[in-house]
Amino acid sequence: MEPVSAAVSAVLPAGGSGERLGGATPKQFCGLQGRPLVSYAVRAMERVSWISDIIVVVSPENIETMKSIIEKYGHKRVTVVKGGITRHRSIFNGLKVFAENQSSNRLLQKPEVVIIHDAVRPFVEEDILLKVVTAAKDHGAAGAIRPLVSTVIASGEDGCLDHSLERARYRASEMPQAFLFDIIYQAYQQCTDHDLDYGTECLHLALKYCKTNAKLVEGTADLWKVTYKRDLYAAESIIKDNLSQQICIITDLKEAVAQVGFLLHESLKSQVKVEAISISLSKNDSHLQNIFSGECYNFLCINDKEYATEEIQQLVDMLEKSNIPLLYPVVLILVHLSISENISFSIGLEELTKIKKFAREVKKKNILVYGLLIQCKDHFSLQETVNSAAALTMALIKDRNPELIGQLLVA
Amino acid sequence: MEPVSAAVSAVLPAGGSGERLGGATPKQFCGLQGRPLVSYAVRAMERVSWISDIIVVVSPENIETMKSIIEKYGHKRVTVVKGGITRHRSIFNGLKVFAENQSSNRLLQKPEVVIIHDAVRPFVEEDILLKVVTAAKDHGAAGAIRPLVSTVIASGEDGCLDHSLERARYRASEMPQAFLFDIIYQAYQQCTDHDLDYGTECLHLALKYCKTNAKLVEGTADLWKVTYKRDLYAAESIIKDNLSQQICIITDLKEAVAQVGFLLHESLKSQVKVEAISISLSKNDSHLQNIFSGECYNFLCINDKEYATEEIQQLVDMLEKSNIPLLYPVVLILVHLSISENISFSIGLEELTKIKKFAREVKKKNILVYGLLIQCKDHFSLQETVNSAAALTMALIKDRNPELIGQLLVA
Repeated sequence: MEPVSAAVSAVLPAGGSGERLGGATPKQFCGLQGRPLVSYAVRAMERVSWISDIIVVVSPENIETMKSIIEKYGHKRVTVVKGGITRHRSIFNGLKVFAENQSSNRLLQKPEVVIIHDAVRPFVEEDILLKVVTAAKDHGAAGAIRPLVSTVIASGEDGCLDHSLERARYRASEMPQAFLFDIIYQAYQQCTDHDLDYGTECLHLALKYCKTNAKLVEGTADLWKVTYKRDLYAAESIIKDNLSQQICIITDLKEAVAQVGFLLHESLKSQVKVEAISISLSKNDSHLQNIFSGECYNFLCINDKEYATEEIQQLVDMLEKSNIPLLYPVVLILVHLSISENISFSIGLEELTKIKKFAREVKKKNILVYGLLIQCKDHFSLQETVNSAAALTMALIKDRNPELIGQLLVA
Repeated sequence: MEPVSAAVSAVLPAGGSGERLGGATPKQFCGLQGRPLVSYAVRAMERVSWISDIIVVVSPENIETMKSIIEKYGHKRVTVVKGGITRHRSIFNGLKVFAENQSSNRLLQKPEVVIIHDAVRPFVEEDILLKVVTAAKDHGAAGAIRPLVSTVIASGEDGCLDHSLERARYRASEMPQAFLFDIIYQAYQQCTDHDLDYGTECLHLALKYCKTNAKLVEGTADLWKVTYKRDLYAAESIIKDNLSQQICIITDLKEAVAQVGFLLHESLKSQVKVEAISISLSKNDSHLQNIFSGECYNFLCINDKEYATEEIQQLVDMLEKSNIPLLYPVVLILVHLSISENISFSIGLEELTKIKKFAREVKKKNILVYGLLIQCKDHFSLQETVNSAAALTMALIKDRNPELIGQLLVA
């Protein structure tokens, strides 16, 4: 597909009240892995280099909340705009920023194409954005669609079935959508109050007021709108799944440590992408920083020192110094390799208390620390122990359970 | 609402291939907490006393799988029927069992009202079943509906928007549905091959062939159909949520143990329903059995013996002897109360290995054992330790992580 040749910006309506969710917090502000849903949608736009400005429209009482989210997660190119009392009025307010150039923050250039996307659809990829933008350039309007999951029926006034629609002939209209700016803006300007107050579908406005038949683009299943509590559960699981695709194993140069690092690498690589680096953490290693910028959120530090919180503290400092906002909790597994052949090896409770205290401190920085003990009694049992350590590692990075921080698991 | 005065049976079509899920296993056979989705739908019907027979229609290659599921989970009143190549043909096969009385297994009485429900909608409650059955008795047909989440649009032949439907005027047709048996059976008998092969909506057949306008009944959000992978994630989370609503604390009569049991009870009761029982496990306690039959799947056994696997073995034996099929994994947390004031208290690795081995054995019986150490150094710190133990307990029962079995957590 050709690169985008138009100036493109995006409007994200985020003013909904989330009634269907059944909670006090509007769904766009519900936390997934601690971060509000709206931040995921913003991030999805932000990482697309050819989207110039991102307008987030929120209800007046949430403007400060939204600004603090942008600050906390370091979002760029975002302007917060006050919403109206309905979805269409909010989107219209978002579009006005370009048309009237009234933003006090900075000069926003009117885009040729504007993307409209929901704040509660966190998993939108560049590919579908490119498709709707390209189609909008050609057709004036475009939107993502999905097959219907349920049959759609019309109810009579008596609450009985009037007729059902043939499922194959209809589609669900999803987001993202894209429009030539002049078309959608003109549609909103001509729009009746009834449409502004009771309508929800932008494609309908483009058709009704500008005679523009939007191009329909088949989207992927993960474009769905987070609507109910179960959708938050699903989104959280998808995020955890995505976060547990990659792990970085850090070892020092000692032979036993490097060997266990190698065995763990072998055992893990069928399940996740593994980056292995051998460093002394005291050096400020740029390779490690690169891995971190590459959105790896899982680290396994193998050490033969007992409860090497000093070593891991250096890693924590390095993450902090990198100045990259932590979009997700980082999992740091502190692997203690015990080479003692003593079968009556034991773990002191005082030491355990020390790890727990350290973990509680570091959690404030959104870093989850767990301990993992590998006892290397003999070569015969080592492979089995390493496999068990790999299984525990996968369980820890998949669950990212904040309650279990500071615990010492035994492989 | 009046009790049901009609003979009612149910047909569950479970013959789908689950293409939209993207996995090799059809979704109705995907495991949630280890148990196939279809078993949840069967269980939902089975626990409603006024449903006589439950017909599960599966494709020929899955008949044995389905029979073994019924055997394993002790489902009652279920007949497995061979499906057709489409959804409608499968449902028709299910209905024929009553009409032709051809089942070789036993005599199935033709019901006055038949419920049709999807195998992939696990969370159907008695309340909505009663509503659709009652409405079907009055109207001949009835079905659950939900508001539309997305706008429905019609596409033209050029792949562009033709028109969009006014969302408020339409509904999504969901399950369960119910019919006077004679109406839906007559509809299927008169049905064209085209309808049998390309249709999906039973309400449509009742309308088209029997002029019966089904009564539409507003259902709850959890009636949704498990369709995509994200729906499996959501269903799994809902099940885990439901399973972590209740916990049973078991203590013996020793004062220190009973006191910690009391403090844990106090700390947990704001989050879950807590049953506390004080027993010597050597007695076969019927109270405990009652709690278990009441579908409590979480137990906390507090003990001052070190790694009292013998004590917990008795509980395991009792669960086994009760002969109740385990529909979900049971979580057993073995709390070791250490009253030692010795700050240099330590945990022997040999002991840890013993718990892990025990946990691996018991896991084969679908019981997940975790260790939890509470050190009772002084009264000042005890409350804090108990709160930490309560938080760890909640984390363990909410996650039900099979990889972490046999680990000893420290409160």
